[in-house]
Amino acid sequence: MSDKPHVVIIGAGFGGMRVAKRLAGKPVRVTLIDKRNYHLFQPLLYQVATAGISPNEIAYPVRAIFRSQKNFDFLMTRVTSVDVEKRVVQTEEGPVPYDYLVVAVGSSVNFYGNASLEQNALPLKDISDAVRIRNHVLRMFELADHETDAGRRQALLTFVAVGGGPTGVESAGALSELIRLVLRRDYRAINMDNVRVITMEGAPMILPGFPASLQAAARKSLEKKRVEVRVETKVLDYDGEKLTLENGEIIPARTVLWSAGVCAASLTAKLGLDMGRGGRVPVLPTLQAAGHPNVFVIGDAAYLEEHGSPLPMVAQVAMQQAQVAADNILAAVGNRPAREFRYRNMGMMATIGRNAAVASVFGVNFSGALAWVVWLVIHLIALIGFRNRLIVLIDWTWSYFFYDRAVRLITRE
Amino acid sequence: MSDKPHVVIIGAGFGGMRVAKRLAGKPVRVTLIDKRNYHLFQPLLYQVATAGISPNEIAYPVRAIFRSQKNFDFLMTRVTSVDVEKRVVQTEEGPVPYDYLVVAVGSSVNFYGNASLEQNALPLKDISDAVRIRNHVLRMFELADHETDAGRRQALLTFVAVGGGPTGVESAGALSELIRLVLRRDYRAINMDNVRVITMEGAPMILPGFPASLQAAARKSLEKKRVEVRVETKVLDYDGEKLTLENGEIIPARTVLWSAGVCAASLTAKLGLDMGRGGRVPVLPTLQAAGHPNVFVIGDAAYLEEHGSPLPMVAQVAMQQAQVAADNILAAVGNRPAREFRYRNMGMMATIGRNAAVASVFGVNFSGALAWVVWLVIHLIALIGFRNRLIVLIDWTWSYFFYDRAVRLITRE
Repeated sequence: MSDKPHVVIIGAGFGGMRVAKRLAGKPVRVTLIDKRNYHLFQPLLYQVATAGISPNEIAYPVRAIFRSQKNFDFLMTRVTSVDVEKRVVQTEEGPVPYDYLVVAVGSSVNFYGNASLEQNALPLKDISDAVRIRNHVLRMFELADHETDAGRRQALLTFVAVGGGPTGVESAGALSELIRLVLRRDYRAINMDNVRVITMEGAPMILPGFPASLQAAARKSLEKKRVEVRVETKVLDYDGEKLTLENGEIIPARTVLWSAGVCAASLTAKLGLDMGRGGRVPVLPTLQAAGHPNVFVIGDAAYLEEHGSPLPMVAQVAMQQAQVAADNILAAVGNRPAREFRYRNMGMMATIGRNAAVASVFGVNFSGALAWVVWLVIHLIALIGFRNRLIVLIDWTWSYFFYDRAVRLITRE
Repeated sequence: MSDKPHVVIIGAGFGGMRVAKRLAGKPVRVTLIDKRNYHLFQPLLYQVATAGISPNEIAYPVRAIFRSQKNFDFLMTRVTSVDVEKRVVQTEEGPVPYDYLVVAVGSSVNFYGNASLEQNALPLKDISDAVRIRNHVLRMFELADHETDAGRRQALLTFVAVGGGPTGVESAGALSELIRLVLRRDYRAINMDNVRVITMEGAPMILPGFPASLQAAARKSLEKKRVEVRVETKVLDYDGEKLTLENGEIIPARTVLWSAGVCAASLTAKLGLDMGRGGRVPVLPTLQAAGHPNVFVIGDAAYLEEHGSPLPMVAQVAMQQAQVAADNILAAVGNRPAREFRYRNMGMMATIGRNAAVASVFGVNFSGALAWVVWLVIHLIALIGFRNRLIVLIDWTWSYFFYDRAVRLITRE
């Protein structure tokens, strides 16, 4: 075993996992490093935040996934830096030398340097964020239930989702349904007509990058679910009580969800490699870092242009790049030439709520109940583990028929 | 509504919930106060701690349970004190006046004043405790997987459960099965023969209070599952690295679970009432506090003797007392005489693991697979909510057939 080239992968997201899988049974040793012991299915994180499913349904232990892969080892630790000259990854558990390195560290939330936003707005990037949002939203209703001051109550009942991308839109839709369909019956003393859920986007339309017809359909769906949609609206600051917009308007709100930007995970700064816009590492079309042919960077952490514009930071890109990176490592091991990455965009979709989604699949645009069913099926299939699929299906069926959300728990104080 | 007598119940455990339910449709207003927004099904907490089920499967939102009860209100807050003269409960959300008070605050873990035990041993009383144990145990295996020092590795792989009552026995059994049947396949580099799981009890037998034949059967079952059972063994101290016994023996262990004692929740000290042993409030056979006929204390927080010995601190007592307390409140409202509580012990049971449990039901003692099935059925029925029952059943079936545990996640660092 030990004479085989050692491939170290940093990050157990969509990209890192797929590289490790593709190297199964090949003449290399694989070590996957992540600070968490599970792979997180991020696309459903907003459902954890809105009490629809429980965190463990979208998290799957890395070791369980790779149980039968013999050339695989897992190290749960934080990476502190990488020495690309000496070919060593430094971790909190000690140094890990490598022959080939795959950097698949993903992205983190971008507050654009605004400290008060970072402190008071709620991001949605990992399980603890999602549970924090769930706890926070339910807590607002507990407080509003016994609040006698009308102004303070209105601020407790105002929920703003900043960012009109899929995460922001999906969060706002799911939040509005949670409130209008479920919490309405839990908090009989609260007049739910006073509740405001607002989506804010700086661009002229929500879902930037989607076809115009779907942008319009998504907006209509959101408004039907009583979400206020505000475009060309930029946030200046948020102190936990008042949201200040760029035009000077102030909205009293105790809850601001922040899905308005991502940048490459901060680890990219510790690689000793050049960094481009948003902390992303520029790579060659073969996904190698310039000047370091044995270092591959994929997914949100990598910067690569195609047809003059940067590839989007989405799971599809990461998973397709993972295959090329794995193949190019094996090519290098076998002294074969590397191949170039080319992105095949399968489409994009976003769900707004019950019977409502928008989808663009292989160039065909559709919306409404059909798009919603397609969204459900695709996400259910993409989940890892039979148990997780079964229980998410039960939770979805349950909410659909009983207008209930299973996980209305405030678990941390 | 507001002219009806106001019943305030502190605590949404087995006792408090049942009082509130029994007062449905009666000529009183009910306010239930709890610091959490959910009722916790404590008997399955050890399965959360051993990665078998997820926390939300044993937690159910209080408001969802009482959705259709019109004379019910819920207040999520901490009680800071009670003024029994002025008949006011002081909370972090302000004062709550009452006509009748039910104190159903339950119990907390007793470390008998040992600060280093309290800091380093892991109790199992609420969801955060259970998740902490799960994270801790899995973390020990992650560390052991790459630990090269044999002594340090042995301490990482030594797990001690102090306390031979049902919680300690069930935790030790479930932990041993998690390790021997599931983690064995996740951590191929660890020799599982080195793992030690130890149950410790100060009395001469585990499961004190159980019939002697069941004590012996439980011990045999534990040993078959490779749990070391040590009786007449008392713990002196634990510094997080070394467990010191009363006889001077030192066991290097990074994990010590503490289920060796409970006392009434600390809130009983803030009631302005007399307190008895373990912080429990002595009550009359009608469950009223002496000198305060409109204050009822039930469950673990109440001290009442029957046949010369104190009633045990178990859910059965709390639930039966809840009915008497509710009836006596209604009797007082209707100017009828109060009735006295009498305990009907239905039996006791503890599960050790797959196909192994001991049970004493209405005086009939049995053990093994039959007791295990009876235990499963009773606990499944006692769970609140169809979804929770279904998902726990799926998790149990899954682990039974696939030797798998669904929730092997390290969620906090």
